[in-house]
Amino acid sequence: MKFNELIKQRESCRSYSTKPVETEKLTALIESAILAPSACNSQPWHFVVVNDKEKASKMPSILQGSGINKFTDSVQAFIVVCETKAKLMAGATCDSQHYAQMDIGLTVAHLVLKATEIGLSTCIMGAFAEEPLKEFLSIPSEVKTRLVIAVGYAKEEKIREKKRKDFNDVCSFNQW
Amino acid sequence: MKFNELIKQRESCRSYSTKPVETEKLTALIESAILAPSACNSQPWHFVVVNDKEKASKMPSILQGSGINKFTDSVQAFIVVCETKAKLMAGATCDSQHYAQMDIGLTVAHLVLKATEIGLSTCIMGAFAEEPLKEFLSIPSEVKTRLVIAVGYAKEEKIREKKRKDFNDVCSFNQW
Repeated sequence: MKFNELIKQRESCRSYSTKPVETEKLTALIESAILAPSACNSQPWHFVVVNDKEKASKMPSILQGSGINKFTDSVQAFIVVCETKAKLMAGATCDSQHYAQMDIGLTVAHLVLKATEIGLSTCIMGAFAEEPLKEFLSIPSEVKTRLVIAVGYAKEEKIREKKRKDFNDVCSFNQW
Repeated sequence: MKFNELIKQRESCRSYSTKPVETEKLTALIESAILAPSACNSQPWHFVVVNDKEKASKMPSILQGSGINKFTDSVQAFIVVCETKAKLMAGATCDSQHYAQMDIGLTVAHLVLKATEIGLSTCIMGAFAEEPLKEFLSIPSEVKTRLVIAVGYAKEEKIREKKRKDFNDVCSFNQW
């Protein structure tokens, strides 16, 4: 698949079938994710894949809040993306986590594009109560849970047109 | 190209030929970048493409510091990735920029993977003196310049093996 077809097919899916997600497919997502670049190759990430049927069935009540993530009830697998301590090069003058959130974005882009390629749908969630989630998955207190990705088979395969700001509003040449 | 081939070919290139980069190719990179997902579709990014010969020739002295970005002397094009004010959904309880750095990572992943597909090499730089760069490109003071991407044709086409942490050190199933 051409890269532009892939990125056009990748969209936030909020309606999932209850078909289970194959473990080897979830593994493939992580294998692609960890090939992402990161500052000084620090790889400040850890992925917790939740695909056990009983465990996954408890995730929606943890993720849902007032009006958020309501679509997760039928989701069969989740990937919790954690930010871990980054080791930058000796001589780096910034805080160790200075680039970590951008690195999380890079790895998640790999993950969701790989999912698209192998017929899986995803939704990246950023709003959820962090503490109950960490407790549920025994995530160490010093670790940040940045994003949770719903992974599964879409109920309907119908790609929406992407709405984006105009090219000229977000890009300029040789000066702002 | 299969997605895994694409991500294996994408690497940080620090040796560029002086062959100019076609403007239409630079435009294609931005067109792919802006299709990335972002929190509430906020698209908190602005790209300044520096490809004017004279302007680009002044970038290395701005980007280089003690021991950093020394490879940029022969780079013919740069893309400065800025973080702009994000508008999240009404009801969002976090700061407007809470997800913006992750969104920058997502869009940059699209950009560098598209570059790989069309035969361009890239290097994502995160360390540079922000103020002289902003002044040089008339970037507004309230805008953050997060990353600068070198874009060009590699001097040698030789892909290095990627070194990454072991899968089991960065991934666990159903609990940390």
